[in-house]
Amino acid sequence: MNVQLLMTGNELMSGDIIDTNSAFIAQELMQIGIEIKRRVTIADDLQLLVDEINHNSQKADILIINGGLGPTVDDLTAQALAKACQKPLVENQEALEHLHSWCKYKGIKLTPQNKKQAWLPESADIIANKTGSAVGFELIHNNCQIFCTPGVPKELTHMLQEEIIPVITTKLPESLCIDVSRLLIFGIGESNLQKLIDEQLPNWSNEIELGFRAGMPTIELKLTTRSKKATKEKQYWLDQLKGLLGAHIITDKPISLSEHVVQLLQQSNKTLTTAESCTGGLIASAITQVSGASQVFEAGFVTYSNEMKSALIDVNEQTLITHGAVSEQVVREMAVGALNKSHADYVIAVTGIAGPLGGTKEKPVGTVWIAWGAKGNINTHCFNIKNNRLNFQHHVCTLGLDLIRRILLNCQETPNYLK
Amino acid sequence: MNVQLLMTGNELMSGDIIDTNSAFIAQELMQIGIEIKRRVTIADDLQLLVDEINHNSQKADILIINGGLGPTVDDLTAQALAKACQKPLVENQEALEHLHSWCKYKGIKLTPQNKKQAWLPESADIIANKTGSAVGFELIHNNCQIFCTPGVPKELTHMLQEEIIPVITTKLPESLCIDVSRLLIFGIGESNLQKLIDEQLPNWSNEIELGFRAGMPTIELKLTTRSKKATKEKQYWLDQLKGLLGAHIITDKPISLSEHVVQLLQQSNKTLTTAESCTGGLIASAITQVSGASQVFEAGFVTYSNEMKSALIDVNEQTLITHGAVSEQVVREMAVGALNKSHADYVIAVTGIAGPLGGTKEKPVGTVWIAWGAKGNINTHCFNIKNNRLNFQHHVCTLGLDLIRRILLNCQETPNYLK
Repeated sequence: MNVQLLMTGNELMSGDIIDTNSAFIAQELMQIGIEIKRRVTIADDLQLLVDEINHNSQKADILIINGGLGPTVDDLTAQALAKACQKPLVENQEALEHLHSWCKYKGIKLTPQNKKQAWLPESADIIANKTGSAVGFELIHNNCQIFCTPGVPKELTHMLQEEIIPVITTKLPESLCIDVSRLLIFGIGESNLQKLIDEQLPNWSNEIELGFRAGMPTIELKLTTRSKKATKEKQYWLDQLKGLLGAHIITDKPISLSEHVVQLLQQSNKTLTTAESCTGGLIASAITQVSGASQVFEAGFVTYSNEMKSALIDVNEQTLITHGAVSEQVVREMAVGALNKSHADYVIAVTGIAGPLGGTKEKPVGTVWIAWGAKGNINTHCFNIKNNRLNFQHHVCTLGLDLIRRILLNCQETPNYLK
Repeated sequence: MNVQLLMTGNELMSGDIIDTNSAFIAQELMQIGIEIKRRVTIADDLQLLVDEINHNSQKADILIINGGLGPTVDDLTAQALAKACQKPLVENQEALEHLHSWCKYKGIKLTPQNKKQAWLPESADIIANKTGSAVGFELIHNNCQIFCTPGVPKELTHMLQEEIIPVITTKLPESLCIDVSRLLIFGIGESNLQKLIDEQLPNWSNEIELGFRAGMPTIELKLTTRSKKATKEKQYWLDQLKGLLGAHIITDKPISLSEHVVQLLQQSNKTLTTAESCTGGLIASAITQVSGASQVFEAGFVTYSNEMKSALIDVNEQTLITHGAVSEQVVREMAVGALNKSHADYVIAVTGIAGPLGGTKEKPVGTVWIAWGAKGNINTHCFNIKNNRLNFQHHVCTLGLDLIRRILLNCQETPNYLK
C-alpha cells in the first residue's frame, strides 16, 4: 500500500519548528505494517498545495495531509483540496456544530475566523477532533483516499490513533505483520550498547532489526520483526537482552521513567520527597506530571540559596561554610532535612553547578552531588556531567529517579554509572 | 530563485530520527534571502531517488540533496544522480585523494567500502568536506544546479556554510532582502488575534506577511518582508501592533517568558518565590532553567498535600477544612506563607485540579486559583483551564509568570484573561 505524507506550513519550511508530526505518523503506521516511502513538505502557498495534492494523489493509495486547518489566513488545506478536486467549499453542518460545542466548552465566543474552519470541500466526510477546534476531513480524489489532519501534535495524536488508523487497518492485507518491541534504557551509552550486543550476543538473528534512539539521557532500543516466525523468535532475544542489560532496562512498556517510579511507589505504598538545588524543581515537576502523583508525593523543596538550605531543610550553616554548597556533607544534610520536614519514606537530594557560570577549578561546571535513599540509609555520589544547562538538569533528574527506582526494585547490581 | 530540498534516508522516514538538517539548511538560506518552498523526503530507494531528481530538477533553479553519501549499500545518491543524468559513475581522482588523506589522518585503512565514496557521476565537481570521509559534489541537470551534501550534521554545516552558500550568493539578484520580526504573545488566542488585526488594522500592508505559530499557550507572531521598502514600512506596523496588543506582547526579542521574567527581576534587583500545588515544581523549574536565576530565586515550595501546605508555608488548617485546598483563601495564605518563609519580594502561588482525576461538580478538573504579587499586595484569580494534565500545568505556569511580568513592568492595563 502506497501511503504518502504531505506536510504544510511556512514554519516547517523556515526551520522555525522541527517537524515531529511526520515522525509520529511514521511510527504509528509502522505499528500496522505500513512504511512511508515519500513525504513532501511545502510552504503555505495555495498553488503549490493544489499541485502537490494532484500530483501525489495520482501515485498514492492514501495521502495524509498534515497542517493548515486553523482559523488564520495562512491555513489553506480545505481551500486547496477543494480546488484540486474542483469542488466548491461549503459550510459543513457537522463541523459547524463541533465548533459551537467546542466554543461552548471553552467558554469563548465563536468568531467568524473560527467559523472558517467549518468550510470544507463539498462531499468531504469529517473526522472528529476531540481536543481542538478544527475537525479533520477526508475524501477520495484520483482513487486516492485523502485524510486532512491538524498540525497541533495533541490533536493529531487523537485523530490518527482513534479515527484514521482504524480506517486504514480495514484496508490492509492479512499477511502484513510488522511487530515492534521497545526497551527504555538508562546508564549505558549508545556505542557501548552496540558493542555489548555485538560481543555478548554474536549470533543475533538478522530477522530482528535493532534500532537505537537516543532520548538524552535515556535510550530507546527498538526491535522490529517483519514475519510471524521472527516475531515468535523475538521473545528469546528479548530475554537475552534482559539478561545482558539487567536493571539498565527501565521498562518494556510505553511509559516514562517518572511514570514507572510513581507506579513503584504506589505499589509499595511509599512516599517520596525532593530537595533540589541545581535542578530547581525539575525532579518534583517530573513526578507531579504523572497523574496519581498526589498519592506518593506530598512535598518538595527547591532550596536554591545557601540561606534557604538552612532555613527550610535544616542544613547546618557551618557545614555550608566548611564544605561549600556542592559537597557530600551538604547533600546528605539536605536529604535528611527533607525527609524530616516532609515525613516521606524516600528522598532525592541534589546540589551542583548547572553552569554556564559558577564553576571553579575544584568544582567545575557539571559537578553534582546526589543523595538518595530512606531515613538512616542515605547514599551519596558525585557525578560530573558535561552538558549545557538544560541537558545537565535533565540528566541529573534522570539519575535521581533511576537511583530511587533501583531501591524500590530492591536491585542488588551496581549500575554502570556508579562504577 | 526556486530552491528545493531532497532529503534521503530510511531513518528520516521511519521516525527514528527527527530531521534537523532541513531546518538548518532553511535557516542558513533564509539569511541570504532565500525561502525554500518545497522539500521532499524519501526512503533509500534507487528508483524513487531517480524519479525525484528528474522531477525536481525540472522545476527548481537549485536542488540541494542531503544524505546518502556514506559507504554502505543504502547510500545511493551518487548512483541515482548518475542514472538521472544518464552519465556513468567514474572514480573521481580528487575524491579518492581526499579519502586517502582522511584515512591517514584518522589512522585507519582505506577499505573497499570507503572507496565507493569516490565513485561519482562523470563531470561532477567535488565539494570539499573538511570533517568527514564523503566529499560532496555538484553538477547541472535540466538547467538546475544540483548540490549533493552529507547527512552528518557537522559535515553538512561546514559544507553548506563554507562551500555552497558562497556559490549560491554569487547568483542572487542584488534586490533580494528578506527581513523577519517576531513577537511573543500571551493571553490572546490565535483566532482572536487574527480577528483583532482584521478589525483594528484593516489597511494592513500586503507587503508584510503575517505568520502565526501556536506555542501552547504562547503565540509567536512573525512579520516577514521581502524588499527594503517593505522592511522600512514594517516598523510602522510593528508600532501599530504594539499599540493594539499592549502588554499581551511579552517580547520582541528571541527569549522565552521565563528568561524575560528573570531579566526583569535582575534589573529591579528583586527576588521571587513560588508555592506550587498543581504545577508541582514546574514554575520553579521554568525559572531555574535560566542561567543567572540564582540572583533572583532563592527558594520554592512544592506543597502537594494539605498537611504540607500547613507544615511548610503556614496555611491555616481551619482554612483548608472550611474552604478546601483549591480556594481563594488557601492560595492567598500559600502566597503569604511562601513570602514569609523565603523573604522574597514577589510570589506566585497556585492550587488547582490538574486532573484527569480529582474533579468535583463545584470544582471541576481545570479549576485553579493563582495568587501573585508582593507582601501586603497579593492579587488572586480563579481560572478554568480545560486541557490535559501536562498542558494544564504549562498554561498555569505561563499565567503565573505573565502576571508577575506585568507587575514588574508596572502594567496598568488588565490582561484579556482577567476580564
